[in-house]
Amino acid sequence: MSMQTHETIGSLRSQIVQARRFGRRIGLVPTMGALHAGHVSLIQAARRECDTVVVSIFVNPTQFGPHEDLARYPRTPQQDLQMCHQAGVDLVFMPSVAEMYPAPSATEVNVPALAGRLCGISRPWHFAGVCLAAAKLFNIVQPDVAYFGAKDFQQAIIIRRMAQDLNFPIRIVICPTVREADGLAMSTRNSYLSPAERQAAPGLYESLQIAREMILQRQPPAGEVIQAIRDHLARRAPGGQIDYVRLANPDTLEDVEKTEPPVLAALAVKLGSTRLIDSVLVDR
Amino acid sequence: MSMQTHETIGSLRSQIVQARRFGRRIGLVPTMGALHAGHVSLIQAARRECDTVVVSIFVNPTQFGPHEDLARYPRTPQQDLQMCHQAGVDLVFMPSVAEMYPAPSATEVNVPALAGRLCGISRPWHFAGVCLAAAKLFNIVQPDVAYFGAKDFQQAIIIRRMAQDLNFPIRIVICPTVREADGLAMSTRNSYLSPAERQAAPGLYESLQIAREMILQRQPPAGEVIQAIRDHLARRAPGGQIDYVRLANPDTLEDVEKTEPPVLAALAVKLGSTRLIDSVLVDR
Repeated sequence: MSMQTHETIGSLRSQIVQARRFGRRIGLVPTMGALHAGHVSLIQAARRECDTVVVSIFVNPTQFGPHEDLARYPRTPQQDLQMCHQAGVDLVFMPSVAEMYPAPSATEVNVPALAGRLCGISRPWHFAGVCLAAAKLFNIVQPDVAYFGAKDFQQAIIIRRMAQDLNFPIRIVICPTVREADGLAMSTRNSYLSPAERQAAPGLYESLQIAREMILQRQPPAGEVIQAIRDHLARRAPGGQIDYVRLANPDTLEDVEKTEPPVLAALAVKLGSTRLIDSVLVDR
Repeated sequence: MSMQTHETIGSLRSQIVQARRFGRRIGLVPTMGALHAGHVSLIQAARRECDTVVVSIFVNPTQFGPHEDLARYPRTPQQDLQMCHQAGVDLVFMPSVAEMYPAPSATEVNVPALAGRLCGISRPWHFAGVCLAAAKLFNIVQPDVAYFGAKDFQQAIIIRRMAQDLNFPIRIVICPTVREADGLAMSTRNSYLSPAERQAAPGLYESLQIAREMILQRQPPAGEVIQAIRDHLARRAPGGQIDYVRLANPDTLEDVEKTEPPVLAALAVKLGSTRLIDSVLVDR
């Protein structure tokens, strides 16, 4: 079948109901558009494992803070549709804000114990917005599998926990971070970077690789690893403003003192006005 | 087909998936068991409108407070199954607490603006527990329609709002309160009443009927109606301890001053150690 684009919940669902009637396995790739190779890798994973691949494109306002980049977040629908088509997507769901939020949601969904850590400290509203949008999309699409990038590791494990706690009959797949040749994690927000910031940006992943090596070689105390990350960032991205650098238990996101794998090394750094995040899961 | 009983999510869902494959319309009646004529009326509504009727029987611990009646809440599974069978139920879902909560839920679901009013003032945890269990059951059963009693009016409209906000593709039907011959709303907790308390209990509905007449005849200020309810309760159930008596907007549950219909008249009264609730929706 050729790719269909749906802007309303009703028209999408009529297709979904039919796909389900035929016993098709439905895969969902939720995105905010401005697609890049990271998104394509999620679509490809869905394409391999599912019969019907659904991509949602929705810049979800509830996960942005009042002074964040909601208004200037890139919107490239024509290019997105072309990329979806080339990647073999079956259904694209591109709702308006009014379609997704006809009224402000009175319902709140969150995983406070996970949402309050890492990015949640400087962005306390963020993951409640993510959970709300994810729950809505899960109910609209009712997929068998949903695909998320490890780039947004905290988001992915929060959604996985939400799906598990609320018994959504959906398998949450976390796909590896896709990187530029110099190691920078693919992100729509990379387009905000000035040339100088773009040159400094690979320092984030370099510092995480240094951390990985230290942990795998001799499991030093967390403080020592964090200092090494900070030292590298200071050298490599001297203008960068560190939001956090943490070593955490990848299940609970609680800080660890001992660095026995598995350990999540995660950071957020502001280069100019652009906040970048990255993380590596150090495992045996 | 004859009635099936499922104790695990997996075995129930295999039946649900099949019913859905055949295009059957699925109705869910969520209960805490100890079924009475009120529950039967919900089952009958589902039986009329749906192809597959599912009744869940689960005393949900997360909606009970630490000093409430979770331990002594009546459990009458054999009698419940017989009533379900006689009412033409297809699938009964009777999970254990461990099946529903293999670990404490890290995910929270709530509708704070509605949950903080009426019963939510003296039971601030209650509706978060209700929303969590409802969301779980909705995902486990994936019904087309779910049936709730108007007896628990606040619960019903909170769940309806949750379903709407989270795009559950489920119609929420609110069925009329079923009453004893003397007007007492059917409730599992009526079984806790001593003979003297049982004699006083119809005073709740009597007072609400007085309120209804006052509003329909001359729309007096809310305070006057509330005083009339309290006066009747003082006469008719002198030992009763009033938790609240309120006139509220039935959509927002906010207190009203003017009593132009529609108005919800709602109350909670403790007779001995038993807390009873009742309400009437006064509409033209």
